[in-house]
Amino acid sequence: MGQDVVSSGDYVLVVLDEKRKWLVKVKEGEALHTHKGVVDLGSLIGMPYGCTIRSSRGEEFFVVRPTLADFAVKAKRATQIIYPKDLGFILMNLAVGRGSRVVEAGTGSGVLTGVLASWVMPEGRVYSYEVREEFLKVAKKNLERMGVAEYVELKNKDVTEGIEEDNVDAVVLDMATPWLVVDHAYMALKAGRVMASFSPTIEQVQKTVFEMEKVGFIDVRTYECLLREIIVKEGRTRPESFMVGHTGYVTFGRKVVRAL
Amino acid sequence: MGQDVVSSGDYVLVVLDEKRKWLVKVKEGEALHTHKGVVDLGSLIGMPYGCTIRSSRGEEFFVVRPTLADFAVKAKRATQIIYPKDLGFILMNLAVGRGSRVVEAGTGSGVLTGVLASWVMPEGRVYSYEVREEFLKVAKKNLERMGVAEYVELKNKDVTEGIEEDNVDAVVLDMATPWLVVDHAYMALKAGRVMASFSPTIEQVQKTVFEMEKVGFIDVRTYECLLREIIVKEGRTRPESFMVGHTGYVTFGRKVVRAL
Amino acid sequence: MGQDVVSSGDYVLVVLDEKRKWLVKVKEGEALHTHKGVVDLGSLIGMPYGCTIRSSRGEEFFVVRPTLADFAVKAKRATQIIYPKDLGFILMNLAVGRGSRVVEAGTGSGVLTGVLASWVMPEGRVYSYEVREEFLKVAKKNLERMGVAEYVELKNKDVTEGIEEDNVDAVVLDMATPWLVVDHAYMALKAGRVMASFSPTIEQVQKTVFEMEKVGFIDVRTYECLLREIIVKEGRTRPESFMVGHTGYVTFGRKVVRAL
Amino acid sequence: MGQDVVSSGDYVLVVLDEKRKWLVKVKEGEALHTHKGVVDLGSLIGMPYGCTIRSSRGEEFFVVRPTLADFAVKAKRATQIIYPKDLGFILMNLAVGRGSRVVEAGTGSGVLTGVLASWVMPEGRVYSYEVREEFLKVAKKNLERMGVAEYVELKNKDVTEGIEEDNVDAVVLDMATPWLVVDHAYMALKAGRVMASFSPTIEQVQKTVFEMEKVGFIDVRTYECLLREIIVKEGRTRPESFMVGHTGYVTFGRKVVRAL
Repeated sequence: MGQDVVSSGDYVLVVLDEKRKWLVKVKEGEALHTHKGVVDLGSLIGMPYGCTIRSSRGEEFFVVRPTLADFAVKAKRATQIIYPKDLGFILMNLAVGRGSRVVEAGTGSGVLTGVLASWVMPEGRVYSYEVREEFLKVAKKNLERMGVAEYVELKNKDVTEGIEEDNVDAVVLDMATPWLVVDHAYMALKAGRVMASFSPTIEQVQKTVFEMEKVGFIDVRTYECLLREIIVKEGRTRPESFMVGHTGYVTFGRKVVRAL
Repeated sequence: MGQDVVSSGDYVLVVLDEKRKWLVKVKEGEALHTHKGVVDLGSLIGMPYGCTIRSSRGEEFFVVRPTLADFAVKAKRATQIIYPKDLGFILMNLAVGRGSRVVEAGTGSGVLTGVLASWVMPEGRVYSYEVREEFLKVAKKNLERMGVAEYVELKNKDVTEGIEEDNVDAVVLDMATPWLVVDHAYMALKAGRVMASFSPTIEQVQKTVFEMEKVGFIDVRTYECLLREIIVKEGRTRPESFMVGHTGYVTFGRKVVRAL
Repeated sequence: MGQDVVSSGDYVLVVLDEKRKWLVKVKEGEALHTHKGVVDLGSLIGMPYGCTIRSSRGEEFFVVRPTLADFAVKAKRATQIIYPKDLGFILMNLAVGRGSRVVEAGTGSGVLTGVLASWVMPEGRVYSYEVREEFLKVAKKNLERMGVAEYVELKNKDVTEGIEEDNVDAVVLDMATPWLVVDHAYMALKAGRVMASFSPTIEQVQKTVFEMEKVGFIDVRTYECLLREIIVKEGRTRPESFMVGHTGYVTFGRKVVRAL
Repeated sequence: MGQDVVSSGDYVLVVLDEKRKWLVKVKEGEALHTHKGVVDLGSLIGMPYGCTIRSSRGEEFFVVRPTLADFAVKAKRATQIIYPKDLGFILMNLAVGRGSRVVEAGTGSGVLTGVLASWVMPEGRVYSYEVREEFLKVAKKNLERMGVAEYVELKNKDVTEGIEEDNVDAVVLDMATPWLVVDHAYMALKAGRVMASFSPTIEQVQKTVFEMEKVGFIDVRTYECLLREIIVKEGRTRPESFMVGHTGYVTFGRKVVRAL
């Protein structure tokens, strides 16, 4: 169980409480500066996961394994990220598994990329298109943190001009103009598989759905997912007062080849 | 790409439209009987995924790869199943990946079991506890459909009496009395990892949260996830009129070992 | 307190339990037929409100005062009705009160009409436009049940051709093409007051909002309201499993007269 | 139509845009100070409602009639206020109208008090109980703004010790311990009428519901209402990113007198 001891280079989640958590890289000589004092990250090397550590001000912090949700929420952001509620729902609705080959566009901050890679690794691959080079730098960093960079091929190309892969197991779009890629997605996808598109606005959804229906996708469905935290306290249990009201809509469709 | 031709024994999704879909096993001599005619399942053998097939009444059906969401929604049901929105969200919040060892209780219909197995396979294992033998039969069937039965150890044991595994990467509870297992979960779990509990009622959540806080879990949080379909039609776009209002609450907590 | 004895001609709510309630007119010789036996409505005359009555099969029913919500939910329906959650929210956002004059279109089943009339009566008036004569018959019946028919002027006219009233305190639209009436609404409305529009689809909302902004309404805002019942039972408290996912969007705007 | 000219002493809503609105009293010599300049409130006297006015910095503001929702949202706050979505929904579910007598507790900031008074005025009355004298001062101010102070009897008394009125048409509770007043509410209420209770936490709801069922209320139901704004913009229509996730639950029940 050697992997449960913190090693130099590990990304760990340092937790003060439900609201204050930091995703940091463990390294000799590095420190995490908080309003509750400084945490010496080098001193974590060799300590077991789940341990407690005191800051310079004597405050107790916890050191735990980050989840995919932690990597998502704490990602360096080039763009709006997709939230865990949507990430998980997308995964459940794709016809992919270990070893699958997936095309994604755009890469953005690389959060969805990393989740897809975690799912198809190690034999599978994610081919991720992004026109903005500066986003690819951020995405690369996030993929390294998640430990899945080697399963991703980042492509600094304009996906509206075409998808170079074919026979892929899924196409996932998270970009401003998904409707411009629907036709390419249809061509690249294996018959019988799913494409997904994530968009914040209803106009994007409409254009994408109409295009998907036009090129022949079936079972085209759009969803929104609302997540609400419930504060559970003795005698004072209630939903949180403020919540995220909207992230985006997710649309799914399946490629079929109609009989002549 | 041989896997994209339908083989005897494959579970395929036969789609008429958004509302009418069947998850069936392809086999010589078997047929799917619908109000739109009979579909000869044997004739699918050797056909490509994504193909269309005519029923005895000439109606067009589509044959596609099932997703995990399809397996969940179309599962044989021994109990209430967990919906894809919750399944995906749970996965994102566990600290597991390929090769992880996960304890689950109860098995129920085996849907969550199968999703966990899909995530940790092939090196990982899911140890799933269930006291009701008749549920295990249903679960076994669903796991076979999902193609992950070999990665699951079904245990006809009462998890409230203890968890036999230790040093596991996650414990996931979906049972009537999760609070009775929180202590066992804490013992079985590796430090730094996550336990999750899914419960329909607020009283279950309260008892479980208070017990989790008592035995030392930190970062204990509870969520509910609402999924709504959006009907996207030219000039008539709107959310669906009726939706699922509640499935259950999901609670997460992390095991830490406090310094003496 | 004479009004608390049931009189012939009263509309009362007969309640068996949370799910089974009937809105009926009390009259000598009339009866309510239920699967739990027959309730003699004539026998209620002279009985106090809140009393219990036995059906022919000895089952206990309760007789109570209907609320506006009861009148809405139990209305005879010519069209989709507006639900209490939306009715109340609309009222709160209009600048009207006792004595106000309100224009409404279309009348539909007359539920919103009746609620508006209940609010502005007895000095105020609701002018309600409806092109389909058969709807006006249903609306008239519902307004009589609610006891507010005398405060409403039902107009069998096409409101898209113009609003005959002017200087009104509110205009409320619940029709298929509200955007065609926005200009008339602006003309009819007193400066400084509110118009409201209720529409099921997002395209209706978009056209209406853009038209409202064009003709000069300010503070144009659109909302949706989701209502969920919570089942409160000892040890089994939870939101209802199925809920209404969508009724419609409500848009508000205020008329101002811009300085030249 | 003299009421549509702004008079000294009027409460008006000054609107800059959807997000920036002020509820102010018009008075010679008074001014509204904003980051967009100073608005001379005295200069509004004699101007028509719906007019525009320039601030000292030349910015255009609009002057409109406040709605009940405006009075609620802009109320001086002694406590958490009840939101318009909940206010309207409560009104729809009470069996009250012009002339009704209503008991309320606690008064709090007086927002619900004022809405109830607006509904039952001028013949009706609201009897509002509040133990904290400082809250009554705030409530009095808000009721004066709403123009309904004369229809309300503010009572600096502890409602858990009893309700002095009887034969009232509704009892509405918005207090920390509503279950302690359920029995008094039952006594004070006319048979066949409704009591309502608004509470933020699920434990308050549970205690209140169980007490209501115990003392004999029927048709006891609890709801939560979620309001979400939809941002309607050309090509960018979408729900707001952040929303109020919870205000409180509303419980209703009807008083009946069971046959011996």
